[in-house]
Amino acid sequence: MENEMIPDIVVGRLPLYLRTLQLMLAEGRQVTSSQELGERLGISAAQIRKDLSQFGEFGKQGTGYHIDYLLTQIKKILHLDISWGVVVVGAGDVGHALSRYQGFTNRGFSVSKVFDNDPAKIGQKVGNFTVENITELPEFVRKERIIVAMLAVPAAQAQQVTDMLVNAGIKAILNYAPINLLVPPDVRVQTIDPVLHLQRMSYYLE
Amino acid sequence: MENEMIPDIVVGRLPLYLRTLQLMLAEGRQVTSSQELGERLGISAAQIRKDLSQFGEFGKQGTGYHIDYLLTQIKKILHLDISWGVVVVGAGDVGHALSRYQGFTNRGFSVSKVFDNDPAKIGQKVGNFTVENITELPEFVRKERIIVAMLAVPAAQAQQVTDMLVNAGIKAILNYAPINLLVPPDVRVQTIDPVLHLQRMSYYLE
Repeated sequence: MENEMIPDIVVGRLPLYLRTLQLMLAEGRQVTSSQELGERLGISAAQIRKDLSQFGEFGKQGTGYHIDYLLTQIKKILHLDISWGVVVVGAGDVGHALSRYQGFTNRGFSVSKVFDNDPAKIGQKVGNFTVENITELPEFVRKERIIVAMLAVPAAQAQQVTDMLVNAGIKAILNYAPINLLVPPDVRVQTIDPVLHLQRMSYYLE
Repeated sequence: MENEMIPDIVVGRLPLYLRTLQLMLAEGRQVTSSQELGERLGISAAQIRKDLSQFGEFGKQGTGYHIDYLLTQIKKILHLDISWGVVVVGAGDVGHALSRYQGFTNRGFSVSKVFDNDPAKIGQKVGNFTVENITELPEFVRKERIIVAMLAVPAAQAQQVTDMLVNAGIKAILNYAPINLLVPPDVRVQTIDPVLHLQRMSYYLE
């Protein structure tokens, strides 16, 4: 129910709040305010209070937020009170970086296996993983109940591999191929294309 | 002037339009419409027409957009009629992937050099580059008039390296460290944190 009522743009800000709260906790802090969160993030305090109020009451007027409590609540809202297994598809440079990325720790995700269709890559070591044949992916994700994938294959193959992932039951795809993937309505896609970010900045450059 | 009048969210959609137009051109297409662009991108045709109208008149009622013309105009608006040299800072897994990334070609950016502060990495080959000592970065970017950097260093070092980049004259930073960087108002930052995207999707997962 809640999923349909809260605008996606609000949902998209919760991970930012969570990341900042986790940093504050690592700094040994116990209490914060919407003002302080706002200053760290470049978002207005009013916006932060409004966003959080859509999910419940997390602080008291005048006393601010208990960091540990708010952090735990946001994790629950984002379904991060469990750790999600993730398959990496594509063992090129990007897949390699993702397989070895330390930034997933304590943030709700961990890489379960790495797949590729290239015979030269299958069987090779990538970080702590041995690259598996992509033909084995459907059985693996069904057995392990994995529904999250990171897609790091060339753009020309990305849609075809996506169709395979969707058929295998994947429900969320973090896509590194610079194309818009077509998926059924019950599958989520987020695309990371560094060039889009660079182009958004070059507008402002002389 | 224009820079202050157009909302950043509109600017942020132009690269998406550009990417789609470039794909259409590669498919051999000559003309498109706001309807078709909208279907490919999951954005309403009205929104696309409204966005584009903020920058000028690019099509005629009923005849649609000439892809090559619209694409050239958007490139001009985004200052992509030239190619921007970019320094990669950090020669770890992410820096490695960025240095070898093929996706910059024809999209307005090219990697000029790769820097690190780790003696074990300096002098090593990364793709077509030899990793340079980061102490040489300020002189290099001044001499080559480079104002765009991609930052791929550990979170704990990211702010310090950012201060150095800003002092050296960098005006746009694509940041891969999962923290909010503090920069002066005339410097742009875009942060790519894959976990934020994963967490935004896990909200919708059961």
